[in-house]
Amino acid sequence: MVKTVSILGLEGIPMVKAGDDLASLIISAAKENNVEIEDGDILVIAQKVVSKAENRLVQLDDVKPSEQANKIALKTGKNSKLVELVLRESKRFLKASRQIIVVKDLREIVNINAGIDKSNVKGKNRYALLPVNPDESARILRTRIKKLTAKDVGVIISDTYSRAFRRGQVNFAIGLAGITPFVDYRGTEDLFGYVIQVKLSAIVDELASCAELVMGQGKEAIPVVIIKGLNWIGFKENVSFKDLVISEKEDLFKNVW
Amino acid sequence: MVKTVSILGLEGIPMVKAGDDLASLIISAAKENNVEIEDGDILVIAQKVVSKAENRLVQLDDVKPSEQANKIALKTGKNSKLVELVLRESKRFLKASRQIIVVKDLREIVNINAGIDKSNVKGKNRYALLPVNPDESARILRTRIKKLTAKDVGVIISDTYSRAFRRGQVNFAIGLAGITPFVDYRGTEDLFGYVIQVKLSAIVDELASCAELVMGQGKEAIPVVIIKGLNWIGFKENVSFKDLVISEKEDLFKNVW
Repeated sequence: MVKTVSILGLEGIPMVKAGDDLASLIISAAKENNVEIEDGDILVIAQKVVSKAENRLVQLDDVKPSEQANKIALKTGKNSKLVELVLRESKRFLKASRQIIVVKDLREIVNINAGIDKSNVKGKNRYALLPVNPDESARILRTRIKKLTAKDVGVIISDTYSRAFRRGQVNFAIGLAGITPFVDYRGTEDLFGYVIQVKLSAIVDELASCAELVMGQGKEAIPVVIIKGLNWIGFKENVSFKDLVISEKEDLFKNVW
Repeated sequence: MVKTVSILGLEGIPMVKAGDDLASLIISAAKENNVEIEDGDILVIAQKVVSKAENRLVQLDDVKPSEQANKIALKTGKNSKLVELVLRESKRFLKASRQIIVVKDLREIVNINAGIDKSNVKGKNRYALLPVNPDESARILRTRIKKLTAKDVGVIISDTYSRAFRRGQVNFAIGLAGITPFVDYRGTEDLFGYVIQVKLSAIVDELASCAELVMGQGKEAIPVVIIKGLNWIGFKENVSFKDLVISEKEDLFKNVW
């Protein structure tokens, strides 16, 4: 029998506003799409709608750039108010070059512009910041879905990032609830009894990437994707995307070029 | 209507041997799994079975390490014969640390150990090398499938790699035929008419990641995955995974730490 995973992009989620009950919107959309939410489903939710529901939007005009922000703005050619926002959302400034600022953000994710983004945000000069604590955002969604449907689902909050060494962006997991980030093959045997040494699959990143295939990015407006057929994956409480974050010291690719 | 993508892992593909007609094995397995191969399907094929069919296996005992290999072996604690293999499969040696060698391999992919791997290869000290030209391997498979089924499919050869900044591995595309590597949103408008600046989705990497969710890695032995429901994706001839490879100069994450 063929092993099947289904990726279902929910159509018809309305524009999300500050204070919206995102879980309810998802459950309504699932009903309208004739998709039953079941135990073991994995919900991948685009960061942008979580940020909107949590009112993590900022009007650039209200931001006063610091001296450091002005300096970096000069170097990068970016708006100094936007640079100031990036710095406020960062733990550690890492690198600036033409149009690009790389930081370790407040959530300890190494990314460009601290994940601050303009796309699909209404209003001139209005930008979305990442959720303050994306794991907590995911947990709240999971708990609320459990309350409303009595179903245990995994929740992944996803965002799109550039990678080292490879062109283009892919979706990563930036917040988790109820689903373990990895499948660990280390110590298990392969087809011929050889013990696998290093294999630790970052399945939540793979699930986030999966979801983007139906989310799209522009006008498609499919911010929530339900993935079915993976109930062999580890579901547990007290997970965190921070397990995916490595330190400078651990990074095998540090200074390769 | 819900937007659906299906990921189908073909069960029952036999152990692949040198010289096997992989396309025929895939078509037979699809039949046994009651999966119809259709125009616009995307086949993700694990590198390991392509390497086996192309006889890219090497017996380590037969390898004579060079002086450089011996030096790196001493530094990394790795077998000098394996190090020699890695060097032979590389264009540029980048970095060695405990148990790890990072190179730009002959295909210009920055990876660990030039993609050389022991898992699921039969025989003590027998290792699989990556296909010499994975795009060509993908093209041959695509052409053969077209010949046998009259269907136009996209083919992605995938392999598992570690990433900078994040723990664990994900599947990437290392060879392409008939499918464009990116969906380019640059210059398109978002929900509110804002013109998207940087978004270039590396969908073939996302498809490879998707596929791994059913492939697994150990004894599961599902080396071929068919993805259905993405016929809006760009299909064309003369594609290459090399479009995914960036130069040292282009790498936004160079020297961030």
